[in-house]
Amino acid sequence: MKKFITYLKNKNILIYDKFLLKYFLNIDISVGERFIGLLIHQNEYVLILNRLFETVVSKELKIIYYEDGDNYIEIIKKIIKNEELYIDDNLPSKFLFKLINHDINCLNGYSLINDFIMIKSDDDILKMKKSSEINDKVMQEVKNFLKVGISEIEVSNFIYQSFEKYGVKPSFEPIVAFGSNCADPHCVPSERKLKTKESIIIDMGCIYQGFCSDMTRTFFIEENNLKEIYNIVFEALKLAKKKIKIGIKLSELDKVARDYINLKGYGKYFNHRLGHGCGIMIHEPYEVSKDSDITIKEGMIFSIEPGIYIENIGGVRIEDLVLITKDSYLSLNNFSYDEVIK
Amino acid sequence: MKKFITYLKNKNILIYDKFLLKYFLNIDISVGERFIGLLIHQNEYVLILNRLFETVVSKELKIIYYEDGDNYIEIIKKIIKNEELYIDDNLPSKFLFKLINHDINCLNGYSLINDFIMIKSDDDILKMKKSSEINDKVMQEVKNFLKVGISEIEVSNFIYQSFEKYGVKPSFEPIVAFGSNCADPHCVPSERKLKTKESIIIDMGCIYQGFCSDMTRTFFIEENNLKEIYNIVFEALKLAKKKIKIGIKLSELDKVARDYINLKGYGKYFNHRLGHGCGIMIHEPYEVSKDSDITIKEGMIFSIEPGIYIENIGGVRIEDLVLITKDSYLSLNNFSYDEVIK
Repeated sequence: MKKFITYLKNKNILIYDKFLLKYFLNIDISVGERFIGLLIHQNEYVLILNRLFETVVSKELKIIYYEDGDNYIEIIKKIIKNEELYIDDNLPSKFLFKLINHDINCLNGYSLINDFIMIKSDDDILKMKKSSEINDKVMQEVKNFLKVGISEIEVSNFIYQSFEKYGVKPSFEPIVAFGSNCADPHCVPSERKLKTKESIIIDMGCIYQGFCSDMTRTFFIEENNLKEIYNIVFEALKLAKKKIKIGIKLSELDKVARDYINLKGYGKYFNHRLGHGCGIMIHEPYEVSKDSDITIKEGMIFSIEPGIYIENIGGVRIEDLVLITKDSYLSLNNFSYDEVIK
Repeated sequence: MKKFITYLKNKNILIYDKFLLKYFLNIDISVGERFIGLLIHQNEYVLILNRLFETVVSKELKIIYYEDGDNYIEIIKKIIKNEELYIDDNLPSKFLFKLINHDINCLNGYSLINDFIMIKSDDDILKMKKSSEINDKVMQEVKNFLKVGISEIEVSNFIYQSFEKYGVKPSFEPIVAFGSNCADPHCVPSERKLKTKESIIIDMGCIYQGFCSDMTRTFFIEENNLKEIYNIVFEALKLAKKKIKIGIKLSELDKVARDYINLKGYGKYFNHRLGHGCGIMIHEPYEVSKDSDITIKEGMIFSIEPGIYIENIGGVRIEDLVLITKDSYLSLNNFSYDEVIK
């Protein structure tokens, strides 16, 4: 929090996003449709909170309470007066309209927040490494667990249990897809059972002390006719990693992977960005996509996850998190790429 | 959808809210941090959706797809040109800022949407009645299930199972609170076990064909020293119901209940609004609170839920959903107010 306030250099900001509130204030409450806001103004901060939640937050926080029916925007207006106020990414429009109607000069806080959370501290990095270490271990357990006849939901439940064993929770609902279901990049686990020679996509991660891991592996039960596609996706992953260099744009990584997949004739089946930022949020706002002007800097962590998806046939995705180091990068995932389960 | 378009009278609107998308288009997808929007322009509608989700929506919908890295705001700009565009309540600020930066004249669509969903159709009402009927039945099962030694989580799990039996899901995470935990209006069920002479708050609801129920009852295991408070809350509920009349403001209902609780000396322990709208969302935006200028109209459904909460002691809340009829009102909940479990 202190670091963030120093970084802001007297800029005012209103934070609503629950991951940012958790990161800055270590509070984890769900206020439903009600307003909540961490207001940072001239190097001081205060949380504006409905009194309903008084009993569930630390008494040590500096809080201004309002009650149902009170005008909480007036509280902000009194503090901010005519100064500019940056707003985070996820404030619902109903609140943003109210701020604007109270003549508060609201500015898009995207870059301000993004540039801060994008560069991980040494402590953040330790936690990110540990989070991916657990993820690697659970991936091995999942691989051992896979066998013909099992359902996607059974595998998903197994992932939940394995994470629980390590005292962590999933960073998102695990994606478990078999066979033709692999063609949907966001497949929701179903009762579908695994058959021999089928492909399997496992995309999962956990939250360790507030920091998210995220990895995808594709497996085959014995040989599979998607082997050629697997090799293309794997090569795209390696090419993108090789391209990593401080100072180039994130879009250039997307380009090198996409160009290669295009060259091999599967361009139209790679239907998503190459990757996304990762840290206190599973998807942080700095994207590895074709329009991302953000340049690579030391301390960034993002995913590289090329994929090829063909409707009614199946799909392959391979994903690692990478940490940008002074001279190169470090893969936070060290799980093997041996795809065949015999 | 047709009804909504007629109602809009040529106004343009952008809908992001997932409950509204479910209601209007019968789609139920989670797009994470990506953009999704139902754009209604000059009586025509189109869904703007990331191509990633192509396989999970009906082929019959009119959809414009974009891909990661594409400028989806340009799609909207091309359609809307310089016309005004109403925005729903829950569009994240990152998207609203982008619309504004593209010189799209964005207006607060709160009233426009609220006034439409607030008045239930005959079909909506049938579903709301059925939803509350199931909720009443499950409340009876829960009451029978309560006994000394049971934990809040066990009761919560029982509620999930009971709803499942009726083929419905909870409309929100059930609130189950014992003894002093009843002092937190949003208590999250814990391992705390029920003791004799304690109070119990059960606040729950289900979703039947897209429509939410919501009811609270407070029970006592044998006699309880909160009996006086129970009577005050119950009287406040009855007074508010009695006050219901087409044409008066919702704030007047809040006032009559609050005045009575104040008179009895417990005003500062009634720390939330009297109620909220209910329908396709568990909390619809028309509030029954001290600042609500909305007038009561035929076809509205909202909750009346006075409560008194005393830290370290406990609390009482009683809640019913009411439907406004031509001459009066109808309580959608018909579960008894007999609070003592012997």
